[in-house]
Amino acid sequence: MAEISAQMVKDLRIATNAGVLDCKKALSETDGDFEKAVEVLRKKGLAGAAKKASRDANEGIVGTYIHGGARVAGMLVLNCETDFVARTEQFQQLARDLAMHVVAARPLYLSRESVPPELVAREQGIYREQTVASGKPAQVIEKIVEGKLDKWYSEVCLLEQPFVKDGDTKIQDMLTTAVAKLGENIKVGRFERLEVGG
Amino acid sequence: MAEISAQMVKDLRIATNAGVLDCKKALSETDGDFEKAVEVLRKKGLAGAAKKASRDANEGIVGTYIHGGARVAGMLVLNCETDFVARTEQFQQLARDLAMHVVAARPLYLSRESVPPELVAREQGIYREQTVASGKPAQVIEKIVEGKLDKWYSEVCLLEQPFVKDGDTKIQDMLTTAVAKLGENIKVGRFERLEVGG
Repeated sequence: MAEISAQMVKDLRIATNAGVLDCKKALSETDGDFEKAVEVLRKKGLAGAAKKASRDANEGIVGTYIHGGARVAGMLVLNCETDFVARTEQFQQLARDLAMHVVAARPLYLSRESVPPELVAREQGIYREQTVASGKPAQVIEKIVEGKLDKWYSEVCLLEQPFVKDGDTKIQDMLTTAVAKLGENIKVGRFERLEVGG
Repeated sequence: MAEISAQMVKDLRIATNAGVLDCKKALSETDGDFEKAVEVLRKKGLAGAAKKASRDANEGIVGTYIHGGARVAGMLVLNCETDFVARTEQFQQLARDLAMHVVAARPLYLSRESVPPELVAREQGIYREQTVASGKPAQVIEKIVEGKLDKWYSEVCLLEQPFVKDGDTKIQDMLTTAVAKLGENIKVGRFERLEVGG
């Protein structure tokens, strides 16, 4: 069992705005792992990320990533609230990681809200036909269609894609963790991906 | 008067596909300035650029440029015909220069052909009204409108903008010179510009 120092608790408090006891408990539960402790507090709704997500975020940087002898490149605007946070190595690393993710995962839209409605309707129609054709009972069809649509969103929407580096963490969750850690609202603005012959 | 060496003539021949005598003459006229000699041959229609412009260009690189503490970045696909040319320093410098230009000059469209027709019609309408209102004789109005439209194209179309570094050379002319020098068709594919708060 790792020793939980006062400094660790203090850092976690600054990062999450959670109380001393909650921070101590989260660090104990996660054997002193800072990132996991943030996650624990977030799941319990104790970290301040949710509240911060409503605040204006007009500062930030453009993250860029160039790959494969410059045959493909990605860039995205990563916003935060202050120039101070924009200059931190943590924020800049996140911007690089996300630009790299855009290059590798080829998202088409930012979030499910930004997918054109006619495209959603088309996908729904296809899934419904497939599901009806497979002979599933009528009462579960809409549920199955919804599940297929969720899977499709996680393939085409940046915020719902799993991060390519670990294949697991949702991009939205990476942002929420960063919000808790850096203490400011953080969000992705526009993103673009260019490829030679692409 | 600069000495015109056999090597210089040979280089210019390779770059432009023009004849020995034409290359010698162009170098004499321009006091041995390679770039100007290419230009002279191009104006005389002796360089091979025009013919090359019809060839396929599917190789290339993505040029990127990041400015002002990463608050703004630009990138563009610069195509050529072979990977060999794509790797040359000259081609890569051109890609960087063009990405930098995109950041600074904020083009909205690639060429006048890529401007939506309804936008062109709107601009024409405005210029026609202005010109009629200024009391110009009817027979010159269309000519004036055309001139104003050309000026507008040179503000919003990348290929018609003057290069920001010298404020003079049209981007399209930079490309044509590069075609003559590098001996392959070279063209701009997509370009994008991202800015924090932009």
